[in-house]
Amino acid sequence: MNQLWLQRQLALTAKPRGFHLVTKEILKLLPEIDDFSAGLLHLFLLHTSASLTINENADPDVRVDMETVFNRMIPENQPLTHTVEGPDDMPAHVKSSMLGCSLSIPIGQGRLQLGTWQGIYLCEHRNQGGPRSFIATLQGTPSTS
Amino acid sequence: MNQLWLQRQLALTAKPRGFHLVTKEILKLLPEIDDFSAGLLHLFLLHTSASLTINENADPDVRVDMETVFNRMIPENQPLTHTVEGPDDMPAHVKSSMLGCSLSIPIGQGRLQLGTWQGIYLCEHRNQGGPRSFIATLQGTPSTS
Amino acid sequence: MNQLWLQRQLALTAKPRGFHLVTKEILKLLPEIDDFSAGLLHLFLLHTSASLTINENADPDVRVDMETVFNRMIPENQPLTHTVEGPDDMPAHVKSSMLGCSLSIPIGQGRLQLGTWQGIYLCEHRNQGGPRSFIATLQGTPSTS
Repeated sequence: MNQLWLQRQLALTAKPRGFHLVTKEILKLLPEIDDFSAGLLHLFLLHTSASLTINENADPDVRVDMETVFNRMIPENQPLTHTVEGPDDMPAHVKSSMLGCSLSIPIGQGRLQLGTWQGIYLCEHRNQGGPRSFIATLQGTPSTS
Repeated sequence: MNQLWLQRQLALTAKPRGFHLVTKEILKLLPEIDDFSAGLLHLFLLHTSASLTINENADPDVRVDMETVFNRMIPENQPLTHTVEGPDDMPAHVKSSMLGCSLSIPIGQGRLQLGTWQGIYLCEHRNQGGPRSFIATLQGTPSTS
Repeated sequence: MNQLWLQRQLALTAKPRGFHLVTKEILKLLPEIDDFSAGLLHLFLLHTSASLTINENADPDVRVDMETVFNRMIPENQPLTHTVEGPDDMPAHVKSSMLGCSLSIPIGQGRLQLGTWQGIYLCEHRNQGGPRSFIATLQGTPSTS
């Protein structure tokens, strides 16, 4: 069976601290998803203080509450050693590992196969994170049309 | 080298809230694992209030304690904004992102290459989650036998 | 397009409890990364009380604080059921699922495509974990040189 690979480094625009729905931004950066009949999209953030996750794409309150709950679980005012980059830095590293810097999402018939209520979140854990670079790797069987 | 792809949408039966060992249920749904000599199985839940993880396949107390510890870390009685779907809903979204909705597991010689003590868990974070759909994507080199 | 697969079981040497930077140890075990032009490296730990994650490769204090914060989030002195293997065992299972036992990392032009500040961590959650086995699966397009 024929096999297609595509790999590109891309970037998401700078976002304020919090959880952000970025499905549309990522789809716009990757029109080549169309070219795959069955495959996988792998996204890998090149940072250690932000993360990628899948969660609800509807009510924006979910994103607000995600930020609230993670801040409660990993408070900034706890005694820590690595504090030179500010009180938001070490908690950001912890959140990045808890949520993970990468995602694999199935591609089917030229589209990301997300559930009805699923979206891709960029989780910006720094107060001033800036643009976030990532590597997209697409692989699968080519569309025949 | 020849390359095989298989992608199918499947479902796990409804489970009560908690952590459930589903290795056998998944293997029964995917007899095609036999056809791969070396490859990867990718499982992707189409939901945002359940998750998939790998953990101990032996003592059922581990699954009981997992539920207990995650409930302690993400209590339902904390002040939240997204509460319209019930007190178990927003904590379920948090747990789903902490544990993740997807897994990639190596396939070798026609079998899932899990460690001796490893099993696949479906983590049902809702009180009434219902059946859980997922997409299975298998890829690798075909068995020659 | 030609496609290359490689799958091998390997082991990381025994480490004390804590978070350890193992990028160099893994690269030394996998010289075949050189052979891939574009692809993915999948690492899968065969254990349920250790984990793999990506985090900062520079200041060792980050690894110290990761251990501290995860111990605070999942304390050993909480009431649990699965206690026969010692007070560090059940918390180790929880941490393993929170951080995950596997990673997928892009390979480009014969090298792991990690960000400048990213490294691979082995997170040893047991007091006496011993050597940790894992399966490495490499796939992608072959280098032409």
